Amino acid sequence: MGLEIERKFLVAGDGWRALGEAVLLRQGYLSSDPARVVRVRIEGERAFLTIKGKSQGATRGEWEYPIPVPEAAELLDGLCQAPLIEKIRRRIALKGHTWEVDEFLGANAGLVVAEIELGSEDEAFDKPDWIGQEVTHDARYFNSNLIRHPYSSWKDPA
Amino acid sequence: MGLEIERKFLVAGDGWRALGEAVLLRQGYLSSDPARVVRVRIEGERAFLTIKGKSQGATRGEWEYPIPVPEAAELLDGLCQAPLIEKIRRRIALKGHTWEVDEFLGANAGLVVAEIELGSEDEAFDKPDWIGQEVTHDARYFNSNLIRHPYSSWKDPA
Repeated sequence: MGLEIERKFLVAGDGWRALGEAVLLRQGYLSSDPARVVRVRIEGERAFLTIKGKSQGATRGEWEYPIPVPEAAELLDGLCQAPLIEKIRRRIALKGHTWEVDEFLGANAGLVVAEIELGSEDEAFDKPDWIGQEVTHDARYFNSNLIRHPYSSWKDPA
Repeated sequence: MGLEIERKFLVAGDGWRALGEAVLLRQGYLSSDPARVVRVRIEGERAFLTIKGKSQGATRGEWEYPIPVPEAAELLDGLCQAPLIEKIRRRIALKGHTWEVDEFLGANAGLVVAEIELGSEDEAFDKPDWIGQEVTHDARYFNSNLIRHPYSSWKDPA
């Protein structure tokens, strides 16, 4: 088991767009039960089966196994709960940390979130000016919830 | 994806006990939804993560990935739906086919089933005299159902 310690933020402005290389992610869930999430993801030319346990604060047990891309495509299109989540991810290295900025597509279009992986829950880090409100503990932003309740169905009107 | 074509039978008598080598299996489920079963299994010194799709007749899509035994143990004890299934499996080669005879333990003690893997749904095979009634399509005998409804809760009184 790996331990995943992540904090998640909304993104403000467009300052992040020119940073990092964009890669298309396509992911779905064989289980979206928060106690035993099973995710299938294709990320560019790689694919993974990832299992996540219950969150405790910002920490979560995670087990990840690479699988062949064609088999991941079979699982996504044949077995995973519909609809799938598609997003464009940019990995942005800044001052010793890596931000992952996810720009959602489809029913979640308009949503952009940034995650930072930390070594401990209280590790300090710099926030670039395009980082907005923290949503680490807001379940609406869990990817496994964005399937059933996409952003378009609950975002505040502009 | 592999295609799994299996027929399942109850076992009568004890003629199978002297055949094949016995290995202990310990397995649990991250998803027991029949449309997307995710199983974790330790089988002796090996462990697997196995995904199964919906059954169509005796045929079912199956994707299997080896994982380290200690990680399988973490998943079984920390994340899988309780209780786990434990059984002793004997692989018995007879006339060109392999029978898997599973002797269940714990809440399913008393249940013994035999499965044969076939190349096609109508492939012919010999039945040894310890093979009883066919239960391929009887959902009570699905391992994923034996968690919630163990054999001890519904077997006919002797």
